[in-house]
Amino acid sequence: MDLIESLAVKSEQKILLVVIDGLGGLPMKDKTELESASIPHLNKLAGRAGLGLLTPVDVGVTPGSGPSHLALFGYDPVKYDVGRGVLEALGIGFHPEPFDLCARANYATTGPKGTLVDRRAGRLATERCTGLCELLQKEVKTIDDVQVVVRPGIGHRFVVVFQGPGLGDGLTDSDPQHNGLKPLPVEATGSGGAKSARVANRFIERAAELLAGQKDANFVLLRGLGLPPTIPSMRERFKLTPACVAAYPMYRGLAKLVGMDILETGSTWESELNTLRKHWGAYDFFFIHFKETDKAGEDGNFEAKQELIEHFDEEILPLLQALKPDVLCITGDHATPAVMGAHSWHEVPMLLDSVYVRPTDSREEFGERSCVRGTFGRLNSVKLMNLLLAHSLKLRKFGA
Amino acid sequence: MDLIESLAVKSEQKILLVVIDGLGGLPMKDKTELESASIPHLNKLAGRAGLGLLTPVDVGVTPGSGPSHLALFGYDPVKYDVGRGVLEALGIGFHPEPFDLCARANYATTGPKGTLVDRRAGRLATERCTGLCELLQKEVKTIDDVQVVVRPGIGHRFVVVFQGPGLGDGLTDSDPQHNGLKPLPVEATGSGGAKSARVANRFIERAAELLAGQKDANFVLLRGLGLPPTIPSMRERFKLTPACVAAYPMYRGLAKLVGMDILETGSTWESELNTLRKHWGAYDFFFIHFKETDKAGEDGNFEAKQELIEHFDEEILPLLQALKPDVLCITGDHATPAVMGAHSWHEVPMLLDSVYVRPTDSREEFGERSCVRGTFGRLNSVKLMNLLLAHSLKLRKFGA
Repeated sequence: MDLIESLAVKSEQKILLVVIDGLGGLPMKDKTELESASIPHLNKLAGRAGLGLLTPVDVGVTPGSGPSHLALFGYDPVKYDVGRGVLEALGIGFHPEPFDLCARANYATTGPKGTLVDRRAGRLATERCTGLCELLQKEVKTIDDVQVVVRPGIGHRFVVVFQGPGLGDGLTDSDPQHNGLKPLPVEATGSGGAKSARVANRFIERAAELLAGQKDANFVLLRGLGLPPTIPSMRERFKLTPACVAAYPMYRGLAKLVGMDILETGSTWESELNTLRKHWGAYDFFFIHFKETDKAGEDGNFEAKQELIEHFDEEILPLLQALKPDVLCITGDHATPAVMGAHSWHEVPMLLDSVYVRPTDSREEFGERSCVRGTFGRLNSVKLMNLLLAHSLKLRKFGA
Repeated sequence: MDLIESLAVKSEQKILLVVIDGLGGLPMKDKTELESASIPHLNKLAGRAGLGLLTPVDVGVTPGSGPSHLALFGYDPVKYDVGRGVLEALGIGFHPEPFDLCARANYATTGPKGTLVDRRAGRLATERCTGLCELLQKEVKTIDDVQVVVRPGIGHRFVVVFQGPGLGDGLTDSDPQHNGLKPLPVEATGSGGAKSARVANRFIERAAELLAGQKDANFVLLRGLGLPPTIPSMRERFKLTPACVAAYPMYRGLAKLVGMDILETGSTWESELNTLRKHWGAYDFFFIHFKETDKAGEDGNFEAKQELIEHFDEEILPLLQALKPDVLCITGDHATPAVMGAHSWHEVPMLLDSVYVRPTDSREEFGERSCVRGTFGRLNSVKLMNLLLAHSLKLRKFGA
């Protein structure tokens, strides 16, 4: 039990954690996306709230969505490693149980001698992928005493989950990473994975038999095979009753991994806000996720990201006036600067509002450079939970 | 393998790390050495670069050159302990192999009863030291199956290196630290050092016999006996192809410990700059070392340190224009405030220039107090490598 867990107690106060995905940016001309945006409500909030900068994982480290969200939830993202297979399963809305072996799979094309001609089977259409997955699922329901779940993803990608006794972790990929090579057998790197490897290879064989008549998608590759990490829940660790409002499956999945209740919601931000309003009485911790900013950043669309932040700003005020959270935190999971068109290692602006925030000098704006001077300074994301719990009076005094 | 090692990949981009030894200072009147200096080029750089402050080892800890440089190279200086014997060997340009037992040695004077009369033998002249070392080297080439290397230093100081099988670490000093006491035998603190202790004591005996006719320098004391630390190279850890340009042997030695190629160079800064230019195409990481500022600081000469920084400023611009490093970092290994006349624990100004730096407010100067407000905030030196690698796109994304 770590220090914060040992001090956590229940309180009446409610915490609202708002994650604007990929919020951190870099200047196009002189200002970042956030600094360029017209955000009167966030700026007004920043005037009374405390500001700071979050480092998602470590100095200079560019995080994926998995580690960066686990850190915001108070979990050391290096300790709790969510593998690619599990993340992919979460991403299509499949919530694996503790000993479900998950694999990121894709259709591929092999030539007459069994070498890979196209590792992505010409990036086949999603409809086709769905059809092939239905075929595989229908024909391969079990392998020995192991249930097999096959679920389509986007394009050539899909997910396979193996459910049964004795499936261990520690497996190699079957993808040799280059065309012209033969697919590899899945191998166990330790003794615990022997059965898993056998079952995975048997699945690959069965799939090849079933896909033999297909011109392009005649083979499957498995990568990132692994079990979900064993993670103590936020309930256990922080004595919270937590809920997640997220339109995208992966974020719901990550929230489920740490034991949040996943609230039913629609695909728009407005729908998420309505869901939050509806359930506000029933929980003391809410995580709500705003996705579109990250996409705009990844598309390299500075203006779109700026406008999405402005859109966010317009809707946040009535929500806060209605709900009056005791502790409000608005931040991002990582930076996705439009000028880079990708996630990056840069720090993420953070705003924390509560009656217990110690103010800094003057009226501030919410932006990267004002956060450099913020009252909270620089913080690893994993420590944000300490602040959320402290400001909601959910941490006992340490020592006498 | 730590997180950064696991993420490191090769990229085309080049990193230039410029270390101005003892850069950090304290004000004489109102401004530090750096803040007093007229440095138009560094100030211009600071206007577009990011600033920060480095803590060499830990808050309040005054570091020697060994730990402070290892930290800048990305090595935890507490974990990788370079003993005094090894440092002294590096300082005279001797590069010990992995199992070479190195000792910091000095001539001493003992009286008729074998007690120490002068632990430094009247600080004898370097020429005399050199002569005595030649004598010892000629007469003591081996002890059993161990080769003995004797190399003169400055004044009464010299270095002894023992090379042979089975020489372990963990040895006490023979110097009792006070005149009037008898020299101590070297003792092994663990079982691994038994042979080392025997050989070291035999060397001391042989030296005493050979020096018996000397009036003052009739004995030798050995301190800081130890093997070089086993350090994985920068090539292995960070996938870098690193080179060192340093006029002083100790810095070359420290760079060699972490696997840098040591480039031949002359004794002046101009010569170092020429060396850098000449080899610019062949490496993707360069460490270049500017020594004189530290000396001026240790001499308590505020004005000289200020002028040396101005001299540095004059020569840096043409170099950068010629080489155009993708990532440039100008910083120090530690502070050597002239008003203290010694190394100190104060943080060290750091400037990092790259297209991916997130700017802060306005045109900045390069100085201690502007660095307090810098975009990088405060950082342990050992984390600087994370930033250098990130900004040169040499770190993969962590997780998905």
